[in-house]
Amino acid sequence: MEYRFSDNADVLKPSAIREILKLSSAPGIIPFSAGNPAPEAFPTDIIGGITESLFKTDPIGMLQYSVTEGYMPLRNYVKDYMAKKYRTGSDDDEVLITCGAQQVMSLAALSFCQKGDAIICESPSFVGSINALKLSGAELVGIPMQQDGMDIAALENELSTRKNVKLIYIIPNFQNPTGITTSEEKRKQIYALACKYNVLIIEDNPYGDLYFKNPPPATIKSIDTENRVIYAGSFSKVLSPGLRIGYAIAGKPIIAKFTALKQTQDVHSNILAQHICYKFMSEHDFEGHLNNLRDIYTKKAKLALDLAEEYLSDTVTYTKPDGGLFMWCTLPDSIDMTAFVKKALEYMVAVVPGTAFLTDAAIACNSFRINYSTPTDDELKRGFAALKQALDTFK
Amino acid sequence: MEYRFSDNADVLKPSAIREILKLSSAPGIIPFSAGNPAPEAFPTDIIGGITESLFKTDPIGMLQYSVTEGYMPLRNYVKDYMAKKYRTGSDDDEVLITCGAQQVMSLAALSFCQKGDAIICESPSFVGSINALKLSGAELVGIPMQQDGMDIAALENELSTRKNVKLIYIIPNFQNPTGITTSEEKRKQIYALACKYNVLIIEDNPYGDLYFKNPPPATIKSIDTENRVIYAGSFSKVLSPGLRIGYAIAGKPIIAKFTALKQTQDVHSNILAQHICYKFMSEHDFEGHLNNLRDIYTKKAKLALDLAEEYLSDTVTYTKPDGGLFMWCTLPDSIDMTAFVKKALEYMVAVVPGTAFLTDAAIACNSFRINYSTPTDDELKRGFAALKQALDTFK
Repeated sequence: MEYRFSDNADVLKPSAIREILKLSSAPGIIPFSAGNPAPEAFPTDIIGGITESLFKTDPIGMLQYSVTEGYMPLRNYVKDYMAKKYRTGSDDDEVLITCGAQQVMSLAALSFCQKGDAIICESPSFVGSINALKLSGAELVGIPMQQDGMDIAALENELSTRKNVKLIYIIPNFQNPTGITTSEEKRKQIYALACKYNVLIIEDNPYGDLYFKNPPPATIKSIDTENRVIYAGSFSKVLSPGLRIGYAIAGKPIIAKFTALKQTQDVHSNILAQHICYKFMSEHDFEGHLNNLRDIYTKKAKLALDLAEEYLSDTVTYTKPDGGLFMWCTLPDSIDMTAFVKKALEYMVAVVPGTAFLTDAAIACNSFRINYSTPTDDELKRGFAALKQALDTFK
Repeated sequence: MEYRFSDNADVLKPSAIREILKLSSAPGIIPFSAGNPAPEAFPTDIIGGITESLFKTDPIGMLQYSVTEGYMPLRNYVKDYMAKKYRTGSDDDEVLITCGAQQVMSLAALSFCQKGDAIICESPSFVGSINALKLSGAELVGIPMQQDGMDIAALENELSTRKNVKLIYIIPNFQNPTGITTSEEKRKQIYALACKYNVLIIEDNPYGDLYFKNPPPATIKSIDTENRVIYAGSFSKVLSPGLRIGYAIAGKPIIAKFTALKQTQDVHSNILAQHICYKFMSEHDFEGHLNNLRDIYTKKAKLALDLAEEYLSDTVTYTKPDGGLFMWCTLPDSIDMTAFVKKALEYMVAVVPGTAFLTDAAIACNSFRINYSTPTDDELKRGFAALKQALDTFK
């Protein structure tokens, strides 16, 4: 039979990143295209040990149904931890455990948005979130990124001229794909504008702990006095993405609605994975582990930036992130981005075309994203050299 | 701030079952209200051993990102297994690994339905699916259940008078909540009607392996020559619900769309859980395990039916399932169902009010659901005796 999809589903095409991820796992391809934690960042022995002990002490609890809201000790621990360490979340907020932070964007979009609404996001932004937001039927409006975050004038212009904006979606720390961090000043301005125009903010913060030198500015959620910010947290970059555990911190009515929606998507998140996160946070040296991660990524980023200086800086401009996993590279007008990405693949390096991160893939874009956490140091060296070779073919 | 939810999300209230599940976990309450596998049904030692060996042989693989479609060996194994054992799935079909079968209903509804559309389901039906289908914005149309499945005349009447039906949702085996099995004849009729009126079928089959004496009739998917049936399978009732692993078998364009949508919900399902399911199916005695489950539930069901005969049959009529986990009880008109369910809670037994399973909770309903898999044998005995006491207060 012929299938006719719904209007909302019709706009969704398989994510370019996922498709390139598949390519990037082809033998011999150097994966500058992924967003994977470095293999050495996983505390495999500790998680293996936790898992073994969980199956010894409560095997049925690891396999039986659980509640949609999430494993209560993990919810409580996350709530206390985020409140104490980051002043993120208040007594009027609640925590929901989700299948990765990705699910927070899906729940927020479906809870609040529909056809006729608009959602504002950074441009470029994370493709997985863009698709989750689009699936609600809302129109996505991208605000150009500057060195210190969104162009505030452009943001206010959209908020003041459109009457239908429901959400502002932002990755304030070491943004995916640009690596840009929103300044403290701009965080306050964005929050003030959200209040002025009565819209919600989704603050997506998977990378905040992965700073190189200094912690990023305080979360927007920490200055949220109106329960206007939905904070999306994740264990993917600080513990394991394969576990698929993230969380939302938001006003109680929002979490109640998210819970009802999550029931329709997956009933609850894998319960063993929730126990693993709880035990790792509460019974092991989580802060020491984060310090270790910061060491790993600081070194990786330094190597990548040194190599970019050596091989790319003649031709390509690029961001210099203070944390996270990504840098954003822009080609001169004389080189076609899509042609370059294809050429790079011939030289056995996969990078992600910048168009993948735009609200509309038809917008002109001469940038591409590099991830430096997935490749080994040797792959970084060979990869940047290969990018240089690919660039040289355009001379 | 005050929150304004989207029209679709507005119709979703927290599931009555989930709320009662919370009550049913209060100390001392006998849980006739759950849908949990019996604790003795979990192969805890084997799964513990599998998990330990997975962390020894491929620790990083258990923690790293994976692909949205699911772990390839599991997808292939499920595809072969279902094709060989049940002639379910063809070369034109593909398999997607999901977060429980629940996610299949979410993906199908969002992929195909929107405001203005209608979805047909059995009445009563599983509340989690009802909510997933409703979230698309479509109208739900319930078809009354008879001893052998949906009332076919009523089904054809709806299909012929409505021009906007997109999906028929059916649980053909040991249905939740009624325990009813759709006859072979009716399966063929339903499929023929779906072809005649060009609508898709979602065949949700979490309980099919849990038959007491004879296997149920062949799946509707096994007679599907037009890739019209979306088959939803689950490991929740045959291995573990806490792992949250299910799957869809459907036409390739459908699975491609589902994959794009799943990316927006959770990126992929927990990868460790996928490996566990694969190892358990492929390296252990899966058929022996299923036989063991059938023994457990056959005994539980027999005990429950004997107790129902002893304590309820004077006053209450009830279904006599040939498999699965549930029986559906109907009170005489003289007893108000909601009052009875509350009274039963006073007597320390939780059952689920039948209204929870209707497309519209305002429809009159004098039935309630009993689950006999979660309580221990002793709890079954005490629980049925307590229901009798609660009934007697209405004399």
